[in-house]
Amino acid sequence: MERMTTIRPAMSSDIALMYSLVRALAEYEREPHSVKITEEQLLRDGFGPNPYYECLIAEEDGQAAGFALYFPIYSTWQGPSLHLEDLFVLPKFRGKGIGKALLNHVAAAASRRGCARLQWDVLDWNQPAIDFYNSIGAIMLPDWRRMRMTGDAIKALAAATEVSA
Amino acid sequence: MERMTTIRPAMSSDIALMYSLVRALAEYEREPHSVKITEEQLLRDGFGPNPYYECLIAEEDGQAAGFALYFPIYSTWQGPSLHLEDLFVLPKFRGKGIGKALLNHVAAAASRRGCARLQWDVLDWNQPAIDFYNSIGAIMLPDWRRMRMTGDAIKALAAATEVSA
Repeated sequence: MERMTTIRPAMSSDIALMYSLVRALAEYEREPHSVKITEEQLLRDGFGPNPYYECLIAEEDGQAAGFALYFPIYSTWQGPSLHLEDLFVLPKFRGKGIGKALLNHVAAAASRRGCARLQWDVLDWNQPAIDFYNSIGAIMLPDWRRMRMTGDAIKALAAATEVSA
Repeated sequence: MERMTTIRPAMSSDIALMYSLVRALAEYEREPHSVKITEEQLLRDGFGPNPYYECLIAEEDGQAAGFALYFPIYSTWQGPSLHLEDLFVLPKFRGKGIGKALLNHVAAAASRRGCARLQWDVLDWNQPAIDFYNSIGAIMLPDWRRMRMTGDAIKALAAATEVSA
């Protein structure tokens, strides 16, 4: 019998599943303690009136196998674009093209919306992932690095909003 | 007489100015031909019912001196965050703390919204910028690289949305 992979938009009733997949990805990245979000927050942020993200669920013969989570971003050179934040396939479902199927659907969303760019981040030591991404037409931007500010540093910087010389 | 730096939200009437600042930044980065956007698109994308971005304008004694452009993003570990896409001060206005003043206001926006993270990208050879960002509490994520897909590659990937074994 042929296997059947289906990709569908996540619904609010998928929140417990989405949360478990987010946690599974963090465990795979060996950062389980970095997940500070709750199911309630994921629900509010993804299914309220102005959702922060969209999510696709992959199923294999009706079993949840993976997810892709993305949101709109903006390029002042090229206009509306999409950022793929998470792409994950549970280990037991790997090697069946499910990650590619999820990427196909994210690209379809980007294409429907006329996005100039679809982008995501990869760890520089993850050569198998980089090779795969290159094989489907993505390129790496080697010179750019991400800067990040969190918590108290944001508050400290925000506190100095009065400026004169 | 004391100089006066003011930071204010961009209005739709600033579009010609914003476009000129976007072009000035691209010229500074030696990529003037990469700007494909038009004033009309910037206007529609920033000032319609669901804006893609927000923009701050810096003025020095009433003259436009720089801008910061940012938008919401999402972390599945920490929730709503902000991405700073462009930060630019015209060369003749540098060395007066205007870039810092713009960053202060972007951090204030992040803080008001309870954002867990404020992030932006930097070129790995731009050590003065990296030093400055470190000095205000940002850290670099050295292992991550950006992957990007554009135009025909997005369409080709999108075309394969039917998947079976």
